[in-house]
Amino acid sequence: MLGSTHGTLTTDARRARVIACGEQRPGPVVHDQVGDLDVSGRPLYADVPDLTRFFRPESVAVIGASDAEGRPNTGITRQLLAWAERVGARVHPVHPTRSSVFGIPCAASVAELPCGQVDLAVLLVADPLPVIEELAEAKVKFAVAFASGFAETGEAGAEAQRRLADAVRRSGIRLLGPNTNLNAFEHFRGDLTGPAIALITQSGHQGRPVFSLQELGIRLSHWAPTGNEADLETADFLSYFAEQPEVGAIACYVEGLKDGRAFLLAADRAARRGVPVVAVKVGRTETGARTAASHTGKLTGADDVVDAAMRQFGVVRVDGLDELQDTAALLARARAPLADGVAVYSISGGTGAHAADLATAAGLRLPRLSEAKQTELHQWIPSYLGVANPVDNGGHPVGDARGREIIDAILADPSIGVLICPVTGPFPPLSDKLVGDLVAAAEETDKLVCVVWGSPVGTEAAYREVLLGSSRVATFRTLANCLTAVRAWLDHHTFVGDYHSPFDEAPRTPSPSFRKAEALMRPGRQLSEHAAKQLLRAYGIRVPREQLVTSAAAAVRAAAQVGYPVVMKASGAQIAHKTELGLVKIGLTSASQVRDAYRELTDIARYESVALDGILVCQMVEQGVEMVVGVTHDDLFGPTVTVGLGGILVEVLHDAAVRVPPFGEDQARAMLTELRGRALLDGVRGRPPADRDALVEVVLRVQRMALELGESISELDINPLMVLPRGQGAVALDALVVCK
Amino acid sequence: MLGSTHGTLTTDARRARVIACGEQRPGPVVHDQVGDLDVSGRPLYADVPDLTRFFRPESVAVIGASDAEGRPNTGITRQLLAWAERVGARVHPVHPTRSSVFGIPCAASVAELPCGQVDLAVLLVADPLPVIEELAEAKVKFAVAFASGFAETGEAGAEAQRRLADAVRRSGIRLLGPNTNLNAFEHFRGDLTGPAIALITQSGHQGRPVFSLQELGIRLSHWAPTGNEADLETADFLSYFAEQPEVGAIACYVEGLKDGRAFLLAADRAARRGVPVVAVKVGRTETGARTAASHTGKLTGADDVVDAAMRQFGVVRVDGLDELQDTAALLARARAPLADGVAVYSISGGTGAHAADLATAAGLRLPRLSEAKQTELHQWIPSYLGVANPVDNGGHPVGDARGREIIDAILADPSIGVLICPVTGPFPPLSDKLVGDLVAAAEETDKLVCVVWGSPVGTEAAYREVLLGSSRVATFRTLANCLTAVRAWLDHHTFVGDYHSPFDEAPRTPSPSFRKAEALMRPGRQLSEHAAKQLLRAYGIRVPREQLVTSAAAAVRAAAQVGYPVVMKASGAQIAHKTELGLVKIGLTSASQVRDAYRELTDIARYESVALDGILVCQMVEQGVEMVVGVTHDDLFGPTVTVGLGGILVEVLHDAAVRVPPFGEDQARAMLTELRGRALLDGVRGRPPADRDALVEVVLRVQRMALELGESISELDINPLMVLPRGQGAVALDALVVCK
Repeated sequence: MLGSTHGTLTTDARRARVIACGEQRPGPVVHDQVGDLDVSGRPLYADVPDLTRFFRPESVAVIGASDAEGRPNTGITRQLLAWAERVGARVHPVHPTRSSVFGIPCAASVAELPCGQVDLAVLLVADPLPVIEELAEAKVKFAVAFASGFAETGEAGAEAQRRLADAVRRSGIRLLGPNTNLNAFEHFRGDLTGPAIALITQSGHQGRPVFSLQELGIRLSHWAPTGNEADLETADFLSYFAEQPEVGAIACYVEGLKDGRAFLLAADRAARRGVPVVAVKVGRTETGARTAASHTGKLTGADDVVDAAMRQFGVVRVDGLDELQDTAALLARARAPLADGVAVYSISGGTGAHAADLATAAGLRLPRLSEAKQTELHQWIPSYLGVANPVDNGGHPVGDARGREIIDAILADPSIGVLICPVTGPFPPLSDKLVGDLVAAAEETDKLVCVVWGSPVGTEAAYREVLLGSSRVATFRTLANCLTAVRAWLDHHTFVGDYHSPFDEAPRTPSPSFRKAEALMRPGRQLSEHAAKQLLRAYGIRVPREQLVTSAAAAVRAAAQVGYPVVMKASGAQIAHKTELGLVKIGLTSASQVRDAYRELTDIARYESVALDGILVCQMVEQGVEMVVGVTHDDLFGPTVTVGLGGILVEVLHDAAVRVPPFGEDQARAMLTELRGRALLDGVRGRPPADRDALVEVVLRVQRMALELGESISELDINPLMVLPRGQGAVALDALVVCK
Repeated sequence: MLGSTHGTLTTDARRARVIACGEQRPGPVVHDQVGDLDVSGRPLYADVPDLTRFFRPESVAVIGASDAEGRPNTGITRQLLAWAERVGARVHPVHPTRSSVFGIPCAASVAELPCGQVDLAVLLVADPLPVIEELAEAKVKFAVAFASGFAETGEAGAEAQRRLADAVRRSGIRLLGPNTNLNAFEHFRGDLTGPAIALITQSGHQGRPVFSLQELGIRLSHWAPTGNEADLETADFLSYFAEQPEVGAIACYVEGLKDGRAFLLAADRAARRGVPVVAVKVGRTETGARTAASHTGKLTGADDVVDAAMRQFGVVRVDGLDELQDTAALLARARAPLADGVAVYSISGGTGAHAADLATAAGLRLPRLSEAKQTELHQWIPSYLGVANPVDNGGHPVGDARGREIIDAILADPSIGVLICPVTGPFPPLSDKLVGDLVAAAEETDKLVCVVWGSPVGTEAAYREVLLGSSRVATFRTLANCLTAVRAWLDHHTFVGDYHSPFDEAPRTPSPSFRKAEALMRPGRQLSEHAAKQLLRAYGIRVPREQLVTSAAAAVRAAAQVGYPVVMKASGAQIAHKTELGLVKIGLTSASQVRDAYRELTDIARYESVALDGILVCQMVEQGVEMVVGVTHDDLFGPTVTVGLGGILVEVLHDAAVRVPPFGEDQARAMLTELRGRALLDGVRGRPPADRDALVEVVLRVQRMALELGESISELDINPLMVLPRGQGAVALDALVVCK
């Protein structure tokens, strides 16, 4: 999709950026071998399209321009002219029958445009397809197609969209749309300063609230309404925006993705650059996923996988557009935290208690202020009020010079990086002074000052003029959104500080295991337990000592070699539900028991018409924690790796964590901390702690299998994986592998 | 606390209400025997204080009134005079040295007030205690004490508060405060109509946002800032407000409660009356609970118990003050639902998909509109847009007559009770018309119309003038709050429709079991397993066949009578961790195994210095689902009943549900649906479904134990309770009982 014609531009752009902003956001060197693939054949690198001339063209052609009264294209033409004037672009109207549009001379066709001099063509025609080739001949760089009636309307429209995409690919032009709108050419306020939000939305209407933040003083630099994404997609804008020095954060509204990997590569680029990305992604429920898919014709992916993928690459996922606004605005504008401690400050003990309660519940840390700091605060605050954090000033000290001194004293505490002050109700004699002090104090600190303006009215001068007039105070309308945003801001900086791109370490060539594994594959079939375990063994995953036997006498010999007690199981391709069928015998301690078991298992198999390749005689492994580790396929992201607690209860509780490859050991460890039943690994009821390192190692080996064999297996499940006490490893007691 | 002097008034008030509004809210007859107690000695009925003359006094005394420049009491006096004028109350200033205050003749002392003619005395004095007796002599009905420095300041203050409370109790006066403020005497707008919100807050500042709703057109009728609750408490106002015809919903901000039972009785009254109660309760975290406790000196209770207690009595718990506002406003003003189906309607497919996704995730039901309805909608909406629900009109139809027709057609659908229209961004040509149509349509339907005005700006005329000007459209600023409120509204009406007060059926006299149980109690000690099981048996809970033996020979005889296989366990008071010590032997199938086990168990007991009262020989029970059922004590609500999944994993996962007695079978059943692992009871991996009825029966019998023995046991745990397959009952395999 990403034509190599853009490779040079991008590399230049990146170099320019490194010179301009390298000091601010150094980041690791990007592994930028275009075309590099990992062992699964997926790209390890995505180029950044240079969209400068899209957003800031020197000249724009409007194909289908009109100034006739009452025509829809007339309004659009008028808006484009206004925008072109703002950005200083020449306009070339194109219309077959008009000599001029709004007084500007009109070209009769695209062929009449000055060759190589038009950066952007806006297509107001119903069918953009025939125009694309003409544009290519005129060496136009970018096009925007507003026309609807493509993938969003069903299969015929999807076919039309494929034809359009093919034409675009052949042409070398980069296209935004179809089914998009004027949002990219809106009026971005030039008077606002500081880091900006760049916005990407798959629906114009849904982007409007973030765009409107400009009316509250938050700067916006770009808006990409990606529409149907026949060519340029969310990922392209994400990586481009991550390279722009004025962009402080990227806000996205996503319904589906054209290509999961492209999105992750773009998110990786933003993570390397330290640029925060905040996203609403529709698809929490099946209803939402279905509706979104029919709206844009894109893939939505399983929601838990989307969640995990975004977390892996530091994308902050939120649900509401209000959260998107508030979180993106804070992440764009706030400097890096100087400490992760949060102080709650209020003029009421009730407000302090409530805010401290919800802040703690949101995972924020409220350090207890030192005795010395408390003594300092009690200079200004009556002694019977609590100032350990939350700090309750009781109201009165706000009214005089003490008000500012208290704020400065809290901000001076080294354990505190954030001050949150909920102004629950405006009471002008106090709240106006309080807000004024907070705004003034915020000018003189590098710490974060947040105010929650809790009045539902929102027309008060202290809010509209004082708080929104400050670029240093982060103002919120609800405590919940403040806490969500502060948490995201702290987490973002921790994430970026620790980030190592997994693409840098992703395997590019098959491991020696792969050759062995290939020989075991049986396309279209389920492997026998024995074969599945050989596959695991090929990847260095321990399995019990076991032998496959076809006679009672051989079973007895095998048991002696394996060592008593033993487990015996029927083995054969396509066997499912062994336990339910009685095809497993455990705890056999003698030759006679083994002989009996052999007879019984083969009898049951005959009776149940189960085809056997033999009976497995296995070492019996007890005294561990039963886990499951597996590979499943996601529509959007391909093979994913899952780990969960095993056993019957957990089957009921579905306690599992998932990751999208490639990921490193840090993520494999983080998976374990996501399990609700994680304490089981620490040892309960006097049991020893389990060998977490061995479990992590198995997860990473299974990831390797997912990468190397992902396209040849449809299902892989180690269940149970017995994780032994610390230092003793982990053993795969059973495994299910279904080949594609 | 609730003097019987108020009984007569209340009964009258209730009758008056039944006449006035009986048709609207019939409710079951209240079991109003003042002084009735349940078997645990807790009240089954709480009287409703008649607070009419508190909120609408005919005359008010202001003790400590002032008009001297710069005195804090001067401002308060001025506000009280303005309020008194609004409500038509005479004012009697009281001050020892002034002849008049603001031109009103001043009494020198309380003794000079006209006896029996003052309804309310506002105490602006630093120490209210000495005034209380004087007020009693003047037959003043109510007093308000603003003074602080009581329980909120520590132990000395708490002692002063106890003295004040004692004086109030002796006086017969009802007191609001101390540590309260003017909030009860604010300016309630008289021009707003329709059902009102009544507000109860334990912090003046925290009530301000709900109070400010009046500026958005939401009517408020009362505000009770309860302060330290030395006398009148949250529960008193809750039950009084539930009886007032103008009150549509009660909003509460609660930090702690003086008396858990009183709160539940008040909530029960509101539930019987069908009056919704929405509450923020601080204490989600230990930090919050500690801070709140130090703020008001009240008990906070364990948060999961608070959650359960509120749910049992239909109190809607929310976390944020913004949710409190939005939910209370909707519950106060919306009529009863005509259907529970929600339709999402928007001018953008993206908005529809997003809103439908989050609505479904919030537990709302979006029925698919019938083919006939879709055909009807496609008269006005282009055929390629989805109208099955969500309904996406694509924008244009809004601009003309179709806009209103679409809305009416959706509202006419019998499956739809609620229409939610998110106006994500204002685009006046469309959104002003849309909003106008919604407001007009809402006037002509009994169904609920909700608009989410998603612009972060909020100064737009369509929002301020049109939406907020409508008393029929419910307007929200965030989709999340809209969904929370709609869900609460639907749940409230379901709850009220199904509600049966558990106080009506609570046992008043001890069961025959109680006599048997009393004989088994050993104050201060843990019962032996055998004794604990006899206690369960006394309450009709099945235990395995078992015998306590003191010789190997007796063990063998017992095993024969109990029936092989048997389990043998050491039995003795104070034995804990039997399994870990090796004091349990399972699956014994022969006399020789029983003899060996007897010897081994007594050896271990000797070695471990465990005092035995014998060895239990028990029937072995397998093939069931292991559960735990128990009684724990809560600070606020007393003994509570818990049920959870048993076994080692669930010990790690803490998967349990709790209820505060008294509760009925419906709640016992609901507990099981709250368990994350509830599917285990349905039978998994081919196991039969468990006997839920038997489990519910055990929960109810344990509740009876909690009620009858709650004060004599400090701990009761049946672990495990083996729930057998359906129809086969449940057996308590082990139990721990610790006597107080």
